[in-house]
Amino acid sequence: MKFVRFQQGSAVRYGVLEGENIRIVEGDIFGQWAMGNQTVKPDAIKLLAPCVPSKAVCIGLNYHGHAKEMKIDLPQEPLMFLKPSSSLTHPGGEVEYPAISRNLHFEAELAIVIGKQARKVAAADARGYILGYTCANDVTARDIQKSDGQWTRGKSFDTFLPLGPCIATDIDPDNTDLKLYLNGEVKQASNTRDLIFKVEELVAFASQVMTLYPGDVILTGTPAGVGPMQVGDKVAVELAGIGRLENTIVKG
Amino acid sequence: MKFVRFQQGSAVRYGVLEGENIRIVEGDIFGQWAMGNQTVKPDAIKLLAPCVPSKAVCIGLNYHGHAKEMKIDLPQEPLMFLKPSSSLTHPGGEVEYPAISRNLHFEAELAIVIGKQARKVAAADARGYILGYTCANDVTARDIQKSDGQWTRGKSFDTFLPLGPCIATDIDPDNTDLKLYLNGEVKQASNTRDLIFKVEELVAFASQVMTLYPGDVILTGTPAGVGPMQVGDKVAVELAGIGRLENTIVKG
Repeated sequence: MKFVRFQQGSAVRYGVLEGENIRIVEGDIFGQWAMGNQTVKPDAIKLLAPCVPSKAVCIGLNYHGHAKEMKIDLPQEPLMFLKPSSSLTHPGGEVEYPAISRNLHFEAELAIVIGKQARKVAAADARGYILGYTCANDVTARDIQKSDGQWTRGKSFDTFLPLGPCIATDIDPDNTDLKLYLNGEVKQASNTRDLIFKVEELVAFASQVMTLYPGDVILTGTPAGVGPMQVGDKVAVELAGIGRLENTIVKG
Repeated sequence: MKFVRFQQGSAVRYGVLEGENIRIVEGDIFGQWAMGNQTVKPDAIKLLAPCVPSKAVCIGLNYHGHAKEMKIDLPQEPLMFLKPSSSLTHPGGEVEYPAISRNLHFEAELAIVIGKQARKVAAADARGYILGYTCANDVTARDIQKSDGQWTRGKSFDTFLPLGPCIATDIDPDNTDLKLYLNGEVKQASNTRDLIFKVEELVAFASQVMTLYPGDVILTGTPAGVGPMQVGDKVAVELAGIGRLENTIVKG
């Protein structure tokens, strides 16, 4: 199943993709819900980020290929940082190139969407706390990331967390093709088979530190091939079984 | 004026300290509000953290005395990290010593409470976006902070953000005495005069990166004298004109 969140007039609703159409869902997809009787056409609505995370827990270096490319030893445990809720951006939305950066990078990632409150969950139980998966772009002002040493500022600008287009509940997160296109050209191409720490381990790890709430996301890290974007570029993250998350770079 | 947030039965309310009592406020202190007709006694309520931040923006090394103690050059600009909303703790609440840490530290700080949405605000206008100030303890698993390199995990455990006891609107944030007591003994004693970057500069700096929402907080950094806490310790942050924020360390 693929859940989408969308705006129809002034109302914000959840729906389920059904062929070309969206079937409206009644209730809360993170609680009680049921299929409704109405469908809408995609061109009659504005697609939104499929959830509104209270926080995005992000994982650094987590692909074997990327570690090799960077000539870095494999990490012993995941390296965590945060993006704030204020950085959320919708599918089709604009990513702002900060005036104080000279080196804005894309990072295609699989994002885990938490389905129910998780605290100190064991890896063996983690799947029960995951609603599904979506595409994320961990947009990074690489120069600020490097000069600060702490990654927070370079990763936390408004619009630096594009998410979407849907929450896919039935993909295999350990075997999902992932691609990043810059103006139509493939820049990153990998598969989540190459993840150092798998999704269950990441949910367990993050939940040992902080309570994860429904709608929170964990960005699982990016594969090899990260690189710069310019104002006017179109950047798209595509994950098999989820879809395509496209955004445009604009002057911030 | 001193705003408090509290629980009375099942209701969560705002009030204003009035001598020994709390006058209940009608409405939203971050929007439209008015003094109510009722007062309650402090022993009839449970005091809560005075706001529910969507994020806590924290500033590293920001006291001249602490920089000197650490033998570090003065920073050219503020160094930013985040604590998630899930780390919030109430006055009188418990701080959990994580099972995976062996070195839990206190850090007494002045916290700025944002009063209205702030994006790309100039320092000269920053005071207009501040509702007031409260006490914060930037609780830190120092060993994890050091081993990760990134500070996020060591600063983000549940209960690592005690805030309170009130939002004081009329203090001078550039001249406020600050003390930290561990089991009654003074461990940190300074004054915000010693801040490298003042509160207006911090609001301006953070708001260039991310939109600050009403109730968000900026922790302004800690002075010299940070040190370890043990299970069973009572730790208190005291700021002149604001009050005392006391918490107990328990096994996590």
